[in-house]
Amino acid sequence: MVTAIRYNQRTCMNERKINDFLSKAQTVFLGLVDQTTPYVIPLNFVWDQECFFFHGAAEGRKIDIIHKNPNACFTISENYGTMVNPIPAKTDTAYMSVMAEGRIEVVTDLDEATAAMQAMLNKYVPGYYHSSLSKAHVEKYQSSLGSKTVVHKIKPIHITAKESKLDEQKKYQPGRTIRN
Amino acid sequence: MVTAIRYNQRTCMNERKINDFLSKAQTVFLGLVDQTTPYVIPLNFVWDQECFFFHGAAEGRKIDIIHKNPNACFTISENYGTMVNPIPAKTDTAYMSVMAEGRIEVVTDLDEATAAMQAMLNKYVPGYYHSSLSKAHVEKYQSSLGSKTVVHKIKPIHITAKESKLDEQKKYQPGRTIRN
Repeated sequence: MVTAIRYNQRTCMNERKINDFLSKAQTVFLGLVDQTTPYVIPLNFVWDQECFFFHGAAEGRKIDIIHKNPNACFTISENYGTMVNPIPAKTDTAYMSVMAEGRIEVVTDLDEATAAMQAMLNKYVPGYYHSSLSKAHVEKYQSSLGSKTVVHKIKPIHITAKESKLDEQKKYQPGRTIRN
Repeated sequence: MVTAIRYNQRTCMNERKINDFLSKAQTVFLGLVDQTTPYVIPLNFVWDQECFFFHGAAEGRKIDIIHKNPNACFTISENYGTMVNPIPAKTDTAYMSVMAEGRIEVVTDLDEATAAMQAMLNKYVPGYYHSSLSKAHVEKYQSSLGSKTVVHKIKPIHITAKESKLDEQKKYQPGRTIRN
């Protein structure tokens, strides 16, 4: 079972590193199941209180799917470069990735929705606003006015993280050839 | 139907731009369905001959799932920055994303597998090797020797692309506040 060995070597168990990665990553790829067909959408998100939060329009294909099947896979990956090897099949990628599985819930509590949206602003536009987000603002945008939105939450059932560290000596750069 | 309007405005129909985006993007997020559960994995890939190609170990959870359900969603997204707005709910992201749906096939033809792997090397380590990949090398790594791999292909049934262009005036930068 070479595969199992290879994957075990790449498993990251450092909880602090995983938390830090999840706090900073910009885009998550949310996987859903539409009957027997997968559906993967990129989203902004925030990792807060050991849950993932994201928001979006309260109608559309994503919402229709979630109503029927709330199972979700939340995957985040960052690529740190390609590592060369004289043997082509041993060309490798430096990365870190996290995969979380769980069920999507709608955040109905206004306090929790406001906290999640505040955490999103703190992550994506830190320092931009001089005051905290008001519950009234969140309620207004959740309620209607032609742009009805909803805040979703996933409390992961389990999280797995993998990494393949960058070996600077092997990093591919334009102009690099097998001779150098 | 505000949602429909919003999404239509963001649809990208420029085939050349989509091709260029797919040729350069580094990571794809492959969505699969394991019974009723989604599974999303980040992969290196190449867009060649109007198909997506990727490769990996010939055993493991991904392979088990594909055998039972070859339906795939292939999603690529790049984030070009966050755009601020005095109204928090109007904070926006500049991005381009492509979603393709299709069925995964195993590339059994050695010529096609070699061409796909050559296209992968041309994309990730251009100029590094002085000679083309030999069929013997691909065959060796497909056959066994403790690292059995397989080349997969997806010929998309349909592709959708969306983009939200970056408005430089609105781009968030650290230190920017609502007053500037």
